[in-house]
Formats: sequence, structure tokens, C-alpha cells
Amino acid sequence: MAILVAVKGWDPAPWVERMRARLPGRDIRAWPEDAGSGGDIDYVLAWKAPAELFSGLGNLKVIFSLGAGVDHLPPVDRHQDIPVVRVVDPDLTDRMTEWVVMQVLLHHRQHLAYAAQQEQKRWRDLPQPAAKDVRVGILGLGVLGQASALALASLGFKVAGWARSRKQITGVECFAGNDQLDAFLRRTDILVNLLPLTNETRHFVDYAFLGKLARDGALGGPVFINAGRGATQVESDLQLALTDGTLKAASLDVFEHEPLESENPFWVMKNVILTPHIAADSDPESLSSYIAEQIMTFEAGGKLANVVDPATGY
Amino acid sequence: MAILVAVKGWDPAPWVERMRARLPGRDIRAWPEDAGSGGDIDYVLAWKAPAELFSGLGNLKVIFSLGAGVDHLPPVDRHQDIPVVRVVDPDLTDRMTEWVVMQVLLHHRQHLAYAAQQEQKRWRDLPQPAAKDVRVGILGLGVLGQASALALASLGFKVAGWARSRKQITGVECFAGNDQLDAFLRRTDILVNLLPLTNETRHFVDYAFLGKLARDGALGGPVFINAGRGATQVESDLQLALTDGTLKAASLDVFEHEPLESENPFWVMKNVILTPHIAADSDPESLSSYIAEQIMTFEAGGKLANVVDPATGY
Ligand SMILES: NC(=O)c1ccc[n+]([C@@H]2O[C@H](COP(=O)([O-])OP(=O)(O)OC[C@H]3O[C@@H](n4cnc5c(N)ncnc54)[C@H](OP(=O)(O)O)[C@@H]3O)[C@@H](O)[C@H]2O)c1
Ligand SMILES: NC(=O)c1ccc[n+]([C@@H]2O[C@H](COP(=O)([O-])OP(=O)(O)OC[C@H]3O[C@@H](n4cnc5c(N)ncnc54)[C@H](OP(=O)(O)O)[C@@H]3O)[C@@H](O)[C@H]2O)c1
Repeated sequence: MAILVAVKGWDPAPWVERMRARLPGRDIRAWPEDAGSGGDIDYVLAWKAPAELFSGLGNLKVIFSLGAGVDHLPPVDRHQDIPVVRVVDPDLTDRMTEWVVMQVLLHHRQHLAYAAQQEQKRWRDLPQPAAKDVRVGILGLGVLGQASALALASLGFKVAGWARSRKQITGVECFAGNDQLDAFLRRTDILVNLLPLTNETRHFVDYAFLGKLARDGALGGPVFINAGRGATQVESDLQLALTDGTLKAASLDVFEHEPLESENPFWVMKNVILTPHIAADSDPESLSSYIAEQIMTFEAGGKLANVVDPATGY
Repeated sequence: MAILVAVKGWDPAPWVERMRARLPGRDIRAWPEDAGSGGDIDYVLAWKAPAELFSGLGNLKVIFSLGAGVDHLPPVDRHQDIPVVRVVDPDLTDRMTEWVVMQVLLHHRQHLAYAAQQEQKRWRDLPQPAAKDVRVGILGLGVLGQASALALASLGFKVAGWARSRKQITGVECFAGNDQLDAFLRRTDILVNLLPLTNETRHFVDYAFLGKLARDGALGGPVFINAGRGATQVESDLQLALTDGTLKAASLDVFEHEPLESENPFWVMKNVILTPHIAADSDPESLSSYIAEQIMTFEAGGKLANVVDPATGY
């Protein structure tokens, strides 16, 4: 009846300590040192853990992904019978909402232009549309997309969203499926990507895709914001679009290869705001409480939240 | 029965046109060209109009200030019997909320540090507190302060506000009067100034004042944000505080002398985000509708909104 913390590139100690504090008396171990034979492991808290690890765990009951995405794990369909839980707690969701709201406001309120004016010691006001005349579109209306959509709507933006299945969200125009993708893009001035990385979304955002965004908007050109996963964008296409005017600007938190190589042109593009995959960091304090609660709920016969569907991969 | 548009430094034409469209059949004039003798003027829409103008208007009924502040007008107590209306409509309020939310998020999410890292092509994540562990304090809980306080609270910040009279605002800790000022400042990590400029608030924010802000906060030093009026701050004190570490950073939209002189050190301070008095621009479209409605309400015997109190000057 043990819990294994299997993380690559992170220190497991803070997770082990916190799980011990929250589930006193349990056997909490760190991979690879204390994994043991693995036959007595019930739960794994995983970040970039290798596929081999899982095959040795004959009694595994639940995999907790220490990140809202599961693209860092071996393909979930190998573990069809073992639920994979995406750990998206309210703390992580709130952090993502902050980052998305900030980036949308930065472009809406022309921060890059005002920052350049400050550098030139230039005092000049720029024509400023109202939020109600700016159309934000959210790609992906899951836990994170819905929270961002509601926060932006409450600031007065004209918000729409797109997902596989049709949603009903007060104050948000909902589009669904590939049939409605073009209509959604054509009405969008600021596009926010919060899609998971799956076989279907890999390299989804390419030059043709960006070319469909609204060109008649109040901001003088469309803006692309990505806080989902880097591999959903074709980076050379994005760079072309940012150079030839197809896009006015972008805010990027995620990249196909992280950390971003120093030769990558994104670093020096004047119309790009770049952050190092920090939009919504997993806070061990808050996430370990959330996981401990899920384990207790599960053992009491309750339902796990945010279980990945092996068919869709998210 | 005429309406006079008396603006200095702006083109009156957009205001005259819009008032004509909204109140068809009325005699709408622009100062100084068409002011006439002035005896038949009922309403003035004023921005930086001189004191002399008002003394010639024997039948004046209401002064509409084309700006949320009235410090640009001659002292209101000269016109005790004529109501001065501050034109703060929802459009202007929403714009201010956007600017304040954006600036608070920029400091909370360490934008200046990440922008510097982008320039250095440095990929590194910084420890990030949650919004619930960051204490925002709003100086002034009027129309604008209340709207900003509510928006920040809904993003999860720990929000307090300070005003002359005690307020009751759900989710916002309210302090009142000079007795409670120190307690308010001591619990504040990010201070947002939305006070009007009056005899009492002139040069209110000085070095000693800034020294009272919390030094034990999650952001590593207090932040000052000013979107009220520049003359409420002592600018040399503010510069000292930003240099010696009393303040970590600031966002300034307003200054004692505008436009800001090119020699002013604020322009080049790396911990200052500067905007040219654009936090909440008056949109003639929206404000003229608001004024036309107020005139009709007034003539139907209704109550004017946001009338300045001659005793307090705001
Ligand atoms: N940058 C960061 O710091 C950071 C932090 C956390 C998470 N993330 C990323 O954010 C992503 C979203 O998180 P979440 O919790 O909101 O995920 P979620 O709840 O699983 O939501 C995913 C959304 O995307 C939609 N979707 C997926 N595939 C689609 C497709 N092929 N076509 C149309 N819509 C599709 C889903 O549609 P349905 O609703 O119809 O299923 C759903 O609305 C994560 O996967 C992760 O990659 C990034
Ligand atoms: N930067 C821009 O673009 C921009 C745009 C619009 C407005 N503004 C500025 O924003 C200011 C605020 O606008 P508003 O519509 O919110 O004003 P308001 O409704 O009159 O509110 C003023 C607030 O300040 C408080 N206050 C005033 N004097 C005080 C004192 N001596 N001690 C303690 N509290 C005091 C008032 O307290 P009580 O509630 O107790 O009376 C009230 O809460 C305007 O005056 C203007 O200068 C700037």
C-alpha cells in the first residue's frame, strides 16, 4: 500500500515530504531510489516518468499527473484500465487565469507600444478601443479555458470559445468541432490557446490557421497567445506570421523545445512577449493537498476528478 | 436654453457634434467662438475652462466636468449653488479597471523581471506567490476604487481599501479616515492610488508615507501604482523610494506636470512602468450619451449623479 513519487528533472523531496504530512502513516517513496520491486505501489505521482516504470507496477490503482497536461506521460492507452488523473486544482486554475488575463490586457491596452514610447521618452496617447469592441477567442474550453473565458467576459471583452463538444457558458459564445473552427477564427481578434497536446492538436496552429483570424478588428491586427503546449504550434509558421503582419503580436509561454534554445528568433522579436513556461506552475503545497483528498475520496468509493479519457488522450 | 462646450487643449467639435446628435433641436455651442453673451447658457461641458467664463453665465444650471476629476476646474466653492457633475460613466470606469488590473498583475506576475530575462535570452522560472497571498490596497473607494477593488478580489487578491467614510464592500476589507491609514498601509504590498486631487490629498504620498507599506510581503518589496492624480505624490520622494529600495517598483499614469518633461528620471527608471495619462480616457461617444441622459433626467425633475460636494472638493 505505497505511494510513489516518480518525477524527472524535479526534486522529489518536496512532494514526498508533503504527501507524508498529508497522509500520515502511509509508505511514501521516491523513484528511482526507493521504488522497490513495485508490486506494492498503489498510486504514482508522475512527471515525465518513463513507460518502463509503469509496466512493473502490478497493483497500480491510479496515476496522478503532476501537471494539467498528460503529454509528458507514456501514451495513456497503454494503461487503459488504470485511471490517469490530471491534477488541476483551483490554485493552478487561478494562476492560469491571471496569466491569460494579463496577456490579453497587455495587448488590448497596447503595452508594447507604450513601453517603446517610454524608452523613447515619448508622451503620446494612442486610440484605445473599449473591451466590448475586442473579440477574444479561447481554443479549448476545459477547466482552464472556461475559467479564463469567464474572467475575460467579466472584464467586458466579447468572448467566444471553441471545443470538441458544445458548451453552454453564460456570456461566452460557444463554437464546437472542426466544422465551426473557421467561423470561430474569423470572429477572433485575440486568440488564446489552451488546448492539450494530443495526436489531433499537434501542429494544429500553422500559417493557414493564423491567416483565418479577423483582420478587421479594433486592435489593427490579430494576436496569438499560447499557454497550452508548444507542440500545438508550428513555430516557423508562427515566426513568419509575426514577421509578415499576419499576426500583430504574440504572447508565448510554451514552446516545442523547452528550455527555448538561445538561437531561437522568438527571444528577440519585438512583438513577442515570452515567458518560460510559468503561466500556471504546479504549487506542491496546494497540489499535494488536492491529491491526498482525491486518494481519500477514491478509497471511500467516491469518484476521481479530471480522469483522462484514453480514447481522446486528454 | 443653450449648451456650451468649453474645452482647452482639445478640439470641441467632436463634443459639439455628438451633443447635437443626442439632443436634436438644442442650441449647442463651442467656446470661445460661439459663446455669445453667455446669459442664455444652461449647461457647460467643461475641461480646463477658465474661472472668468463661469462668472459671465448668469443662468447656468449645471457644470459637467469632462473628466472624472474636477481639479482642472476653478475651485468649485465659487459655484456653490451650481451643481458640478463629474462625468464617470461605466465605459470610463471599465477602462480604469482594465488598467489597474493589468498593472497589479504585471507586478504580481513579475513582468519586469521576465521581460529582462527575455532580453538576456534567459530561461528561468521565478518563485511565484498565489494571488491570495498578495495584499492589494486601494487608496480611495469611490466609483473607480470600488470597481477596481471588486475586480481584483475576484481574481483572488487579498484586497483592502481606504476612504474618508467607512464602506461595506463584499470581499474587501475597508479602512476609514486618517486614524486607520497606518494600519491600512502596513498590511499593503501593492498600493493603488485612486484619490482625487484636493487640498487634503495634495502631496499626500511622500517618503514617510511610502515607508509605511508592508516589507514582509510575498513580492519582496512594496509596489506603488498611481492612476489618480500626479499632484497627490511628492515626485522627488517617490524617486528616492524607488532608488533606495523603499519601493520595489511603480506604475505611474499621472504626474505633477503633464506631459512629463524629457529630463524627468521616471522615464528611464528600470522599475517604473510609465503610461501617458491614458488609464481611463474619456470616450466622447460614450460620455456624451451619458451627459445627454443626465440633462434629460435633470429637466424631468430627477437627481443628477456624481455631484461634487463643494465642502470636500470632490
Ligand atoms: N503553460 C502552463 O503553465 C500550463 C499549465 C497547466 C496546463 N497547461 C496546458 O493547458 C491544457 C488545458 O488544460 P485543461 O485543464 O483546461 O484541459 P481540459 O479540461 O482537458 O480541456 C481541454 C479542452 O480542449 C478541448 N479539445 C481537446 N482536443 C480538442 C480537439 N481536437 N478539438 C477541439 N477541442 C479540443 C476539449 O474539448 P471538450 O471539452 O469538447 O473535450 C476541452 O474543452 C493542458 O492540457 C496543458 O497542456 C499549461
Ligand atoms: N488617470 C486617469 O486616466 C484618470 C481617469 C479618471 C479619473 N482619474 C482620477 O481618479 C479619481 C477618483 O475618481 P472616482 O470617480 O473614483 O472619485 P470619487 O467617486 O469621488 O471617489 C473618491 C474617493 O476618494 C476618497 N477620498 C477623497 N479624499 C479623501 C481624503 N482626504 N481621505 C480619505 N479618502 C478620501 C473618497 O472617500 P469617501 O468615499 O469617504 O468620500 C472616495 O472614496 C478622480 O478624482 C481623478 O483624479 C484618473
